[in-house]
Amino acid sequence: MMQDNNTLLISPEQMQDRFTAILLKLGFINDRAAACAKIFTGNSVDGIYTHGVNRFPVFVQYVKAGHIKPNEIPSLHHKFGGIEQWNGNRGPGTLNAIHATETAMNLAREYGIGCVALANTNHWMRGGTYGWHAAKAGFVFIGITNAISAMPAWGAIDIRLGNNPFVMALPYKDEAIVLDMAMSQYSYGAMELAVYKKEKLAMHGGFNNEGKLTNDPAEIIESRRALPIGYWKGAGMALLLDILTTILSGGLSVHEITKSKIETNISQLFIVIDISKLSNHSVIPKTIEGIIEDYHHSVKTDASKKITYPGERVLQNREKNLADGIPVLKKVWDKIMEL
Amino acid sequence: MMQDNNTLLISPEQMQDRFTAILLKLGFINDRAAACAKIFTGNSVDGIYTHGVNRFPVFVQYVKAGHIKPNEIPSLHHKFGGIEQWNGNRGPGTLNAIHATETAMNLAREYGIGCVALANTNHWMRGGTYGWHAAKAGFVFIGITNAISAMPAWGAIDIRLGNNPFVMALPYKDEAIVLDMAMSQYSYGAMELAVYKKEKLAMHGGFNNEGKLTNDPAEIIESRRALPIGYWKGAGMALLLDILTTILSGGLSVHEITKSKIETNISQLFIVIDISKLSNHSVIPKTIEGIIEDYHHSVKTDASKKITYPGERVLQNREKNLADGIPVLKKVWDKIMEL
Repeated sequence: MMQDNNTLLISPEQMQDRFTAILLKLGFINDRAAACAKIFTGNSVDGIYTHGVNRFPVFVQYVKAGHIKPNEIPSLHHKFGGIEQWNGNRGPGTLNAIHATETAMNLAREYGIGCVALANTNHWMRGGTYGWHAAKAGFVFIGITNAISAMPAWGAIDIRLGNNPFVMALPYKDEAIVLDMAMSQYSYGAMELAVYKKEKLAMHGGFNNEGKLTNDPAEIIESRRALPIGYWKGAGMALLLDILTTILSGGLSVHEITKSKIETNISQLFIVIDISKLSNHSVIPKTIEGIIEDYHHSVKTDASKKITYPGERVLQNREKNLADGIPVLKKVWDKIMEL
Repeated sequence: MMQDNNTLLISPEQMQDRFTAILLKLGFINDRAAACAKIFTGNSVDGIYTHGVNRFPVFVQYVKAGHIKPNEIPSLHHKFGGIEQWNGNRGPGTLNAIHATETAMNLAREYGIGCVALANTNHWMRGGTYGWHAAKAGFVFIGITNAISAMPAWGAIDIRLGNNPFVMALPYKDEAIVLDMAMSQYSYGAMELAVYKKEKLAMHGGFNNEGKLTNDPAEIIESRRALPIGYWKGAGMALLLDILTTILSGGLSVHEITKSKIETNISQLFIVIDISKLSNHSVIPKTIEGIIEDYHHSVKTDASKKITYPGERVLQNREKNLADGIPVLKKVWDKIMEL
């Protein structure tokens, strides 16, 4: 995937400005261009390059091809109490997902718990974005998306399951604890990077064409048989996540998205809880700190490695990239400068 | 664990009657004895013996020790819209969980989505029980429990995470699709059974005392280092599930439960969605059938093995055990006859 080892350091402002300019050229109206650029830049600042700067050219391509409609906004389709069904109208997945998150937050303010299901949307890039967004505002967040198929069922060769991510987030100090977890052990982005660096995966990442478990990323990219987390368990969870997002949104399922051969018109789910409405709300921060403190007291197998909670390394990336600039492969940035 | 290979076939009625008699003797009032016996029998009919007949003697022991209070019922502690916080008052975990599930179903009928958090309860045995219960009545169900610690954090040696199960269920035909998933690759029950049968695990199940991944169940039972599903992912998810159940219920977290050395006063969460309130409710059954049909069309790696969805094998067990009787190790049944 990447042939150039030179890395540039791009400031967040520079990246945000460049993305905004490109999006304006694509027809995004002012505030939407800025909001969308902010999400791609924020994902890059947080070190999630595969769903930030590295993915931006693909996003542009989808807009140019008409799969993503820059200025389409979600429309409310149906409402009952704390649950709402929205149509994403094939708008940008990032902006649709922020809208859905904030709508679910408002429902949670009213009903304690709110649920927004979103049909006909596009890739949300990094699910954690919405988890951080809700959790930093004091909410518990659960987010699910389906996707085009990318993984076989357990015991199968052909690709019928989506690598449907599952996100859980909650407030912690002034930041958040965010689990952003795809159903495959490694993303194709991570495996492509390992091939580029001539590295093996730390653990088995899939089956090769002979049906043997392997940690050779090139073999898995060839077989397309990525390994679900926990083998049969992650495969089962991927199936359930697809069914949930599909039936609650009334949108398309993985097999229907896959038929169209393009990852668009996907289905998502956002469940948000307003913990300020709970009887114990004032002690919740201390409760979470107690759990994390105990967790950090774990006896390490390797004294040189920190035991981190989900999202902890994101904070470290963020601090570093805000101070030093965002590392971007020269080849990627050159491409972005040509967009 | 088990020294006798002789297996008896016990009819569901016989098992239910025996359990009811024992529970009555322990002081359960009539309807609660029957309801609790029904759950233990149902789990056994469904083939989940580890949380059915095989576990019943431990349950009795907990009641006798005073950790489980037979006739304590949950009390509503706090309510806001679709979310309620209940105190389980250390009543039987099975009956508390059924109560919480039905309460969440009622909230969902009113608000579309309902959430019940339950503090100070006891082991619910098989989380799937409550998934099947809600899903067969037409609801989507998400259930989470914490537990006494049983698994190390990723990169750690000592045991600080609960093997906190995660359950998702939804209606399918007249039955349900139910994912009932602990965060470890194998339960200690499954590993003990493999030791008894002198079998290795199909996949790695944990680390041995030398810190190497192993599929030897005896080595894992000795090291106590069970493997989280998806390695760091399942470990992270276990941590988040504990925080969620703890802060939403206002109850105890894994590290607090662990301090008491007895698995009681645990925290649980039940989220239920009433799909009859959705705009697309009439087509949902067909949508799910379409997804499962596609899933079943997977090309198999082994033509002799069926590719099953979560819960499908439970249905096969149920049919067989209802027809032939429930297979119970003679040693286990002898023990139950002495209770």
